[in-house]
Amino acid sequence: MNSCQVLSRENLTHLLDSVDTFLFDCDGVIWKGDNLIDGVSETLDFLRSKGKKLVFVTNNSLKSRAQYALKFHFLGISVSPDEIFSSSFAAAMYLKLYNFPPQNKVYVIGGDGILEELRLAGFNAFGGPADANKTVDLKQNIFFEHDKSVGAVVVGIDPNINYYKLQYGTLCIRENPGCLFIATNRDAVGHMTAWQEWPGSISDSIISHSGISAGCMVAAMCGSTQKEPIVVGKPSTFMMDFLLQKFNVSCSKMCMVGDRLDTDILFGQNAGCKTLLVLSGCTTQSALQDPSNNIHPDFYTSKISDMLDLLEA
Amino acid sequence: MNSCQVLSRENLTHLLDSVDTFLFDCDGVIWKGDNLIDGVSETLDFLRSKGKKLVFVTNNSLKSRAQYALKFHFLGISVSPDEIFSSSFAAAMYLKLYNFPPQNKVYVIGGDGILEELRLAGFNAFGGPADANKTVDLKQNIFFEHDKSVGAVVVGIDPNINYYKLQYGTLCIRENPGCLFIATNRDAVGHMTAWQEWPGSISDSIISHSGISAGCMVAAMCGSTQKEPIVVGKPSTFMMDFLLQKFNVSCSKMCMVGDRLDTDILFGQNAGCKTLLVLSGCTTQSALQDPSNNIHPDFYTSKISDMLDLLEA
Repeated sequence: MNSCQVLSRENLTHLLDSVDTFLFDCDGVIWKGDNLIDGVSETLDFLRSKGKKLVFVTNNSLKSRAQYALKFHFLGISVSPDEIFSSSFAAAMYLKLYNFPPQNKVYVIGGDGILEELRLAGFNAFGGPADANKTVDLKQNIFFEHDKSVGAVVVGIDPNINYYKLQYGTLCIRENPGCLFIATNRDAVGHMTAWQEWPGSISDSIISHSGISAGCMVAAMCGSTQKEPIVVGKPSTFMMDFLLQKFNVSCSKMCMVGDRLDTDILFGQNAGCKTLLVLSGCTTQSALQDPSNNIHPDFYTSKISDMLDLLEA
Repeated sequence: MNSCQVLSRENLTHLLDSVDTFLFDCDGVIWKGDNLIDGVSETLDFLRSKGKKLVFVTNNSLKSRAQYALKFHFLGISVSPDEIFSSSFAAAMYLKLYNFPPQNKVYVIGGDGILEELRLAGFNAFGGPADANKTVDLKQNIFFEHDKSVGAVVVGIDPNINYYKLQYGTLCIRENPGCLFIATNRDAVGHMTAWQEWPGSISDSIISHSGISAGCMVAAMCGSTQKEPIVVGKPSTFMMDFLLQKFNVSCSKMCMVGDRLDTDILFGQNAGCKTLLVLSGCTTQSALQDPSNNIHPDFYTSKISDMLDLLEA
């Protein structure tokens, strides 16, 4: 028996009174693939009308903040890039805060979002989709060249992962003195694709039918470099520390809303936030209540629009 | 101070008297890339003339035993496929010994060598190089199909590693009940390519200039499946147990000769063999003698032909 309560009119009222900022995970909370989850728009409007600050925190590094703002826009929700914290942005902010020398380059195993955020932050980033079709001929008598001025390798989910990229990143980390190894996140599987729009999505099948995620690419790099990365996305506290500074809020007045126990809820708990699990993504009620689970959110409910239904009831 | 002795005329004479089988690693011991290491041919001839049994044990799963025999042949050395134990063969023997149902399929992330050994052993294997150019469109509304009759996924070094293969293997392991996850080996970097034919090869640079190896692909699969593989190559004892049965020899009468501490020497020691480290591959004398190293072979020397030089001196 754990302390996790189903969301009710009573505890929701108390939560709304005690919290001034809601942090939302996106995939499985706001949308699934390219479809908005029912009632999201009205729920966000309601929270804004109550004066709550909203922040959207996603581990998916494929897009930049500007690209996410566009996605929100297309889904009919008005969100400013400033309200969005993607792990792609977190990677750029990590280098910024730790005074990464701008004359050093950054090699990217991942999507456009990372490259865009790094460039916006003033860094010289390369790799990513541009290396999608590069190959390594193991039989050819070549010396594999890499840029000695690469001072950081950032690894996120990469739909075009290949041997060339893994080899390039490995050489930079192993050979360039002090080269940083940064992971946007370590989620094993993700659900940013459309194929998880699977009948009966609140079932175990949703998890295994999802696509492999950044955790797979990060693990590959750990395997070849025999080093552990600096993780900047959830559940690492880096993103939270950054948020707290930027918005000047107290953790105890924040509530993290997410669909994953091991990233979202842990992220909130690591920082001392209130936590609300929604079952509209990759966690089932039985997984939550399984004795093997030791991550217990304060509250859980099926989807965020339950807030409206409970208050109207 | 450890007990590792440099090979001398005296301890070599004693070693030759006490041992009847020599197990040789190949990469870095017999050849480097496509070049035979100096004096190898004469050394092997000498050992055979002394009645020693020779076995060649390689973690490199890109080739099958028959393909390795051909490589030996082209390098001017006569070796029968029966004397060769590659990790590709070990994967097939593992399934054979554990009565893997022949009606189940095997999905391969790796090279032709694994497919060939699996097929020779009577298994229905697919994947490998044939999936080199398959792609996954994360944006398309597709359901990623996988074969429910796959009962094992074998992962080795794969120069054509891509998202499709990682996703396919992950789905088989996560979704097919009882599906085995087998790794040929977990070496972080390898030196099967030609680019490590690098001036001053007995230096630290040889390690980092080598290509990424199976450990990288295996780690990727661990990251996405969150499972640990059954490892059949060195230093796992599976290959040794198989060798002992097949040749009916005693471990104490065997000597393992290799260039890697964490696979070759550990493999020999795990089985109770004598061990000889050669510095003609990826281990330097300073790495051997570094206080952080806790794997100590019985003997070390620069290359296997030192045996001849010592006895002639």
